[in-house]
Amino acid sequence: MTSDKKPDRSRRSERSRRAILDATRALISEVGYAKVSIEAIAARAGVGKQTIYRWWPSKGAVIFDSFLALSEDGSEGEPALPDTGDLEADLKTVMRATAAEFADPEFERPIRALNTEILGDPELAAQYGEKLAGPVEELKKARLRSGQDAGQLAADADLDLVLDMLYSPLTLRWLYRSGPLTPEYADALVDATLRAFRP
Amino acid sequence: MTSDKKPDRSRRSERSRRAILDATRALISEVGYAKVSIEAIAARAGVGKQTIYRWWPSKGAVIFDSFLALSEDGSEGEPALPDTGDLEADLKTVMRATAAEFADPEFERPIRALNTEILGDPELAAQYGEKLAGPVEELKKARLRSGQDAGQLAADADLDLVLDMLYSPLTLRWLYRSGPLTPEYADALVDATLRAFRP
Repeated sequence: MTSDKKPDRSRRSERSRRAILDATRALISEVGYAKVSIEAIAARAGVGKQTIYRWWPSKGAVIFDSFLALSEDGSEGEPALPDTGDLEADLKTVMRATAAEFADPEFERPIRALNTEILGDPELAAQYGEKLAGPVEELKKARLRSGQDAGQLAADADLDLVLDMLYSPLTLRWLYRSGPLTPEYADALVDATLRAFRP
Repeated sequence: MTSDKKPDRSRRSERSRRAILDATRALISEVGYAKVSIEAIAARAGVGKQTIYRWWPSKGAVIFDSFLALSEDGSEGEPALPDTGDLEADLKTVMRATAAEFADPEFERPIRALNTEILGDPELAAQYGEKLAGPVEELKKARLRSGQDAGQLAADADLDLVLDMLYSPLTLRWLYRSGPLTPEYADALVDATLRAFRP
């Protein structure tokens, strides 16, 4: 992965940074946000506490970057939404995948921890919106626009509202554990939303 | 309010209980859930700590009951949703009122505190669903059913899904502070949902 030409120190720094971010997510999954400490992250990552404090000012900042790193990995190469030319099928693929992620304890626990922080911290919420949610939403809107061009979605549809109606019920059901996160529910949301914004 | 025939002790108990629940909500608004203590509630309510511990096993239990008391007050007399015979107009009235409540710092702060707790506590979430959200949802569904009878909503509409599509985007926008809680947004959600489930 890392080029052989990179100087040793920079390679070691990058390895430490990765180890710290991986350790952070692992610990959040295992013990929950509140119980994660800089000490525990350092021990798990095999670095000194000072290494962490050199790069991040606070626990919240490390946690945030650990999630940002996830989305850096995920968005390399392919866009967030597939485009087979069939908007309904593509949205169902994506919404079913989202429902499955929310239903997976390993995956959902760290995201739940981050979301809980966001609720009580308007600044973190703004950062989250700008750096994480925003770019993903742009990719989703690009897919919706291609659906508009194909005559599968009303040309005057408010795309932010379309995304809200698709994703908010699934996200809230996950957050509140108020119902099962099934493929059927994912499909029902896509069907209803496309009915609301049909050309 | 309290009948004159009630013995003094029971009247005093009820007054203390009310004072404790009012103090709890006031403190949550002022200092946030995490900083509310049984000591502070007792001091604010003018009762001893032991009085609180006699009735509630934990801080979480007092807080939960303080919200339950709110909904007891609210549901006396009138149903949650108005019924003028015009489903669209009635839903807009209710959704605009909900948006205004979410936008009011005094109103939203304690509810946000409760919601933050719920995210990390499946048992509290279940209790919340059963005792608080459930009964309100039944009232909302009764209004939707009357809209079905009037031919203003598809007879085969999944009413849980209708409620999700109406309320989840507004609730999530409030929780994440991801957009303005305006009457226009409330109206747009009603319009889109009714389009999705038109007869």
